[in-house]
Amino acid sequence: MIKTNANFSKLTPSYLFSEVARKIAAFSHDHKDVDVIRMSIGDVTRPICRAAVDALHRAADEQADAAAFHGYGPEQGYAFLRDKIAAADYEGLGITPDEIFISDGAKSDIGNIGDILSADSVVAVTDPVYPVYVDTNIMAGRRIIYLPCTEENGFLPELPAERPDIIYLCYPNNPTGTTMSRSVLQRWVDYALESRALILFDSAYEVFITEADVPHSIYEIDGAKRCAIEFRSFSKTAGFTGMRCGYTVVPRELKADDGTPLRDLWLRRQTTKFNGASYPVQRAAEAIYSPEGNRQVREAIDYYLGNAAIMLDGLRAAGLECYGGVNAPYVWVKAPANMTSWQMFDLLLERCGIASTPGIGFGQCGEGYIRLTAFNTRENTIAAIRRIATNLKP
Amino acid sequence: MIKTNANFSKLTPSYLFSEVARKIAAFSHDHKDVDVIRMSIGDVTRPICRAAVDALHRAADEQADAAAFHGYGPEQGYAFLRDKIAAADYEGLGITPDEIFISDGAKSDIGNIGDILSADSVVAVTDPVYPVYVDTNIMAGRRIIYLPCTEENGFLPELPAERPDIIYLCYPNNPTGTTMSRSVLQRWVDYALESRALILFDSAYEVFITEADVPHSIYEIDGAKRCAIEFRSFSKTAGFTGMRCGYTVVPRELKADDGTPLRDLWLRRQTTKFNGASYPVQRAAEAIYSPEGNRQVREAIDYYLGNAAIMLDGLRAAGLECYGGVNAPYVWVKAPANMTSWQMFDLLLERCGIASTPGIGFGQCGEGYIRLTAFNTRENTIAAIRRIATNLKP
Repeated sequence: MIKTNANFSKLTPSYLFSEVARKIAAFSHDHKDVDVIRMSIGDVTRPICRAAVDALHRAADEQADAAAFHGYGPEQGYAFLRDKIAAADYEGLGITPDEIFISDGAKSDIGNIGDILSADSVVAVTDPVYPVYVDTNIMAGRRIIYLPCTEENGFLPELPAERPDIIYLCYPNNPTGTTMSRSVLQRWVDYALESRALILFDSAYEVFITEADVPHSIYEIDGAKRCAIEFRSFSKTAGFTGMRCGYTVVPRELKADDGTPLRDLWLRRQTTKFNGASYPVQRAAEAIYSPEGNRQVREAIDYYLGNAAIMLDGLRAAGLECYGGVNAPYVWVKAPANMTSWQMFDLLLERCGIASTPGIGFGQCGEGYIRLTAFNTRENTIAAIRRIATNLKP
Repeated sequence: MIKTNANFSKLTPSYLFSEVARKIAAFSHDHKDVDVIRMSIGDVTRPICRAAVDALHRAADEQADAAAFHGYGPEQGYAFLRDKIAAADYEGLGITPDEIFISDGAKSDIGNIGDILSADSVVAVTDPVYPVYVDTNIMAGRRIIYLPCTEENGFLPELPAERPDIIYLCYPNNPTGTTMSRSVLQRWVDYALESRALILFDSAYEVFITEADVPHSIYEIDGAKRCAIEFRSFSKTAGFTGMRCGYTVVPRELKADDGTPLRDLWLRRQTTKFNGASYPVQRAAEAIYSPEGNRQVREAIDYYLGNAAIMLDGLRAAGLECYGGVNAPYVWVKAPANMTSWQMFDLLLERCGIASTPGIGFGQCGEGYIRLTAFNTRENTIAAIRRIATNLKP
């Protein structure tokens, strides 16, 4: 009999993005004169940097030449890239290249990591949350605990009342753009060590950090190597959303309750179900670690952070309460006058011609908020803020 | 508690390839004058074709330009590639682009497809077999039935005595290089339809087919759209082992016992746990469908098939019994005089300086065989056969 994974029937289909698209299309149809500015997009708009493009060209030429051709590579990724990640991204943190696993992106790794974990683990996620954490665990049949992140707690979850086996933390956060300080993250690491929980730390946005007290990696925190796996992505860092490259760090010290090193299980998973990231893409990622690549990448990030600063200034001048945007490309805007997320969405679209993402799409605690992203052009960002100033004056 | 997937402990670590590597290293150390010819490699050696390289260069330039830049693409793959696959690879078979899912390779898809299937499904695989089918199902906790493929049954499995829920078939076959005719495959499709089993058909080697009666796709067989998923890869077709691109076909007509279309579940799985294949790589794959790309790819395949023909001639002239090699890049060689796989491996290495893969590594029924591949250079292939003629004369 063809029997499917019954957990799929527990997934709630998300109509959020299709509803957002439908509303924008309807508005655009009725207002042909308005150029809708999409501050809803979670994708980058700046091209990949010159150093990465040049590396991609060189790799293309290698693939055309029998003597330089690269076929199957190591499933864990090439040492040329893992060595640079260890040296640059984990400088002084004692992460070795054999604890780093290159992949086709953090979304794949975040989804696939569940393969090595018990299906009866209890999972804690924040609310609001990146939906992938939730849906991948529903697919695996795991029970989920939600940790509310609200204005009252500064969008930082309380330690859970019920002890979870797995805790997802994403800081700088998507969607709120807020951060965890070193001392707060230390509290979570201590909690995980004491309760023997596993932290899955998503630091996809670490490159946007501008403040000194915000950790870039969970391994800056004492004890984290014994309780945490970290996911990173070149998507936002280097504009690689269409290139596909990310990596996962599983320290050797991290062991399951029965003593099994999780690194060995993840290596087994990856060698069995994955055949390595694309060679030309790994060469492009490597180029980011060159001095020019590093500088070029920094320019793009600063461009987006510049947008975020303009957004924060403009939104606050219009009397709106905003969070995030300082160490993250996301601004979390509170809807005034007790409006719902969708009401605020409609207001921004209809009065300002701005597309946003309703916070409710990220969880119940997202109700009453919208998410705006800094991934637009500078021109569009300035125009959007001008529209808000003109049309949403308090 | 950090609890792992207990099924991982049921995996038997494969020492085969490390043992092969160890023996070759030891031999090379003791025989510095002998240049060992590696007929054990499962990787291509010809560079990717000019059309694909040119497409990769063009895509690199697009990624450098804000106006042409491609960020996140559709998780299912770009229509420009899915349309060409539907038109060229499934011409006349009625497969539509929305039934095709582009990925970073067939190995990922073959591993991940289990996500949408019930963990209590019983799985049938041939013996010998590509180890990924076995290990991914052990990880998921599924019970496995082995279907012997021997000289006596022409390396074509009998219909299983116990009814499986899932049946893996790979033809042209890895490792034996043998094929299933249309009528034999029809028998399997009929069996699957009647017993409501799902066939997972791996046609990674279809491009090597030279004989008319060998189906390139399972969808050439009546009823297959209601019982089969097909996996294909650009790895061997276009030398993309280091580029990473493949695809999976899930027809809309294919439904689980409860009526759920498997296509919808796979779409949900891919949109949740995957973020699409690399844009430049998809452009390179698309170029294979151009007239020049097609011709260039054909040249590389013919080169490997030429190697295989030389191997068959030479091995048979040396009195060895051989299978495969006509519609596949693999030659399955019977060890003479009741030698074991490892004894034959040692003989080839020590007397001829040729590295092979012991058949026992692919399953119990692989005992007494070795696998040789046609992926070498012509020069090395000819040299290997000469060594065999000189040193293994009957």
